[in-house]
Amino acid sequence: MDQSNVQLLARIEELQSQVKQLQNQLQQSTTKNSNNNGKPPRREKIEVMSSEVVDSNPYSRLMALKRMGIVNNYEEIRTFSVIIVGLGGIGSVAAEMLTRCGIGKLILFDYDKVEIANMNRLFFRPEQSGMTKTDAAKQTLLQINPDVSIDAHTYNITTMDNFDHFVSCIKTGGLGGGTVSLVLGCVDNYEARVAINQACLEVNIGWMESGVAENAVSGHIQYIKPGQTACFQCAPPLIVASGISEKTLKREGVCAASLPTTMGITAGFLVQNALKQLLGFGSVSDYLGYNAMLDFFPKDTMKPNPECDNKFCRQRQDAYQRDKKNEVVKQPVVQEKKVIHEDNDWGIVIVATEDEITPNQSNNNISLPQGTYRDYTVNKQQISEQDIVKTDESTDLESLMKQFKSLHS
Amino acid sequence: MDQSNVQLLARIEELQSQVKQLQNQLQQSTTKNSNNNGKPPRREKIEVMSSEVVDSNPYSRLMALKRMGIVNNYEEIRTFSVIIVGLGGIGSVAAEMLTRCGIGKLILFDYDKVEIANMNRLFFRPEQSGMTKTDAAKQTLLQINPDVSIDAHTYNITTMDNFDHFVSCIKTGGLGGGTVSLVLGCVDNYEARVAINQACLEVNIGWMESGVAENAVSGHIQYIKPGQTACFQCAPPLIVASGISEKTLKREGVCAASLPTTMGITAGFLVQNALKQLLGFGSVSDYLGYNAMLDFFPKDTMKPNPECDNKFCRQRQDAYQRDKKNEVVKQPVVQEKKVIHEDNDWGIVIVATEDEITPNQSNNNISLPQGTYRDYTVNKQQISEQDIVKTDESTDLESLMKQFKSLHS
Repeated sequence: MDQSNVQLLARIEELQSQVKQLQNQLQQSTTKNSNNNGKPPRREKIEVMSSEVVDSNPYSRLMALKRMGIVNNYEEIRTFSVIIVGLGGIGSVAAEMLTRCGIGKLILFDYDKVEIANMNRLFFRPEQSGMTKTDAAKQTLLQINPDVSIDAHTYNITTMDNFDHFVSCIKTGGLGGGTVSLVLGCVDNYEARVAINQACLEVNIGWMESGVAENAVSGHIQYIKPGQTACFQCAPPLIVASGISEKTLKREGVCAASLPTTMGITAGFLVQNALKQLLGFGSVSDYLGYNAMLDFFPKDTMKPNPECDNKFCRQRQDAYQRDKKNEVVKQPVVQEKKVIHEDNDWGIVIVATEDEITPNQSNNNISLPQGTYRDYTVNKQQISEQDIVKTDESTDLESLMKQFKSLHS
Repeated sequence: MDQSNVQLLARIEELQSQVKQLQNQLQQSTTKNSNNNGKPPRREKIEVMSSEVVDSNPYSRLMALKRMGIVNNYEEIRTFSVIIVGLGGIGSVAAEMLTRCGIGKLILFDYDKVEIANMNRLFFRPEQSGMTKTDAAKQTLLQINPDVSIDAHTYNITTMDNFDHFVSCIKTGGLGGGTVSLVLGCVDNYEARVAINQACLEVNIGWMESGVAENAVSGHIQYIKPGQTACFQCAPPLIVASGISEKTLKREGVCAASLPTTMGITAGFLVQNALKQLLGFGSVSDYLGYNAMLDFFPKDTMKPNPECDNKFCRQRQDAYQRDKKNEVVKQPVVQEKKVIHEDNDWGIVIVATEDEITPNQSNNNISLPQGTYRDYTVNKQQISEQDIVKTDESTDLESLMKQFKSLHS
């Protein structure tokens, strides 16, 4: 073998070693990537929800809601599909909460991109800036819970074509190809709220609206049941102010304030209300407000406006009244489920105020006379003797509140 | 050149090409890694908080709180250091909220590991299972906001040695080496609550306690001001039930239920109260409860028990009463800041109920007579004419609430 051959062979050996080293590095890097970036996710899909109390079961604390007497059939969560319109400070957190609860299917709508300016709210991370909110959300949510089926649409629902597609998603987006279970509105502008309202009235499906004020210190959720409660166009809450601020925002470069607290609390109220409606526990609120400055929580039910501009709303109202007259109240999609058990942590308060409660005049679904607005009512039958928690009266909050009540009544 | 040389040269060329390809792949993989795993984080540190409204500014929506008249000096957030004890469903979310708000420093305490069974609550991700909660939290929080200084201690604060170290952290963990600004208790057991209570009474610093019920449908926060409001041992809320459940949990393998909604809402209440206390806006709540079944929010102030078992509490009470008698109310750490502006989104409610408000008898810090418990009061002076939002009365919620109010008064 001549000298040049020896040199060439040495070079080959050197290169082969370099290839081996690079291959090892690459493998390490890929492993690291897949561990940290979740492709494939480290948490495998789970076929059947289990109540087993082991560290490896992501559903043990949720299935415990059955044992605690709160929810009758938690597994039912897998049969529901929920649309979330808007992945801002409320919608993104709502999506994460429902994902962690193991909802069957989520259908997400947003046309915006993640910006560093969004980092003062929960959910999105700085390294996702520049991605569409739908892509970023899908990435994070599937990593958290691969059992959830997630569809995402990156468009503005208010344009003509997109609106039609949005309506078809409501009609056929359910897990069996039928109507979805619920629509959550988490948008920040008037036009999108009107579009969701219109679509849900047309399909005749209940939806829950949400919003926060531009000063970041108040929020609200509202449950709109076609024909039964005020639709968004019957009596738009917070929208006059919000409409103005958006114009200001676009015209003068003034940006609205926001806080992760107010946004997170409002998202929590929204998803809690959705879970109560879907799984049939507790009392579903028609309107719940949050004033952060005073820790004040207004609650209300608004009846629909018979002169509402929206003709679908008026049609749903007529149908609802007709059904009521026939004493066969049929509600196609929006069905209040019976409370199966009411665990009463604040028992003493309910006992003390029981006599002050306005009883429901006929049933839960009745509409109130025009011009009146019902305060929050508690159905007496829902609370039985054994539901009232009895604890040691000498040491706990209950007895203190009893004293407090007697001093103030 | 002979045949073997040609073959060897071809092999070298092939290997060189392979090396080049692997180098490219490795570079791509490393870039991807650093983008997705945040080492170094893509978001660079920011020296000075800016109000500039650009997509790249993570503080624009927070600094806007100044323009909205909610907070006088938002930048002050960088001067505060907050201790969070417990990184469960409340503490981890509280840490994320404060991090996104740009708090100066967080000091975290937890001795647990992340489990897949924690995935039904916000914050931790499946790929973090097996890591200590302190490590996982630090990783996520620094990636979200590298401007926050984060210390973490992975130990149980209730053992003798650790307790002493915990006390020293309260005393010297502030950004200037002095006392921290606030302690947040986010623990799930009686012993840890007593330890936090003891440490804060000794140091004479206010702390905020939080908790959720084991049935997942109620939560509370409580602000404990040494000598001024009930300490944890004066009147422990929710603890009788909680203590029993923990024993049950350990003895029989029964696990408590939890929901991301209830946990997130309670964390939101806790951090909102902390922000109000630190930045001086709104009314800081002494006790705020959340009953998810009824959407009911009890509020209260509990005065300290003169016969409290804790001698430090009795000493603080004596000092507080002495100061009050001398009409020089000095509160070493816990200082209520004046509300600088009260933006009133629910203006009509306050106007309508103004006459019903119990006026503060002398000042905000006064303790009530023994055996009485003050309901929530609003300082009339805090709300002036110009603070009341005036909007178009024919279309908005305000006018509807006015009607509602007049019908029910």
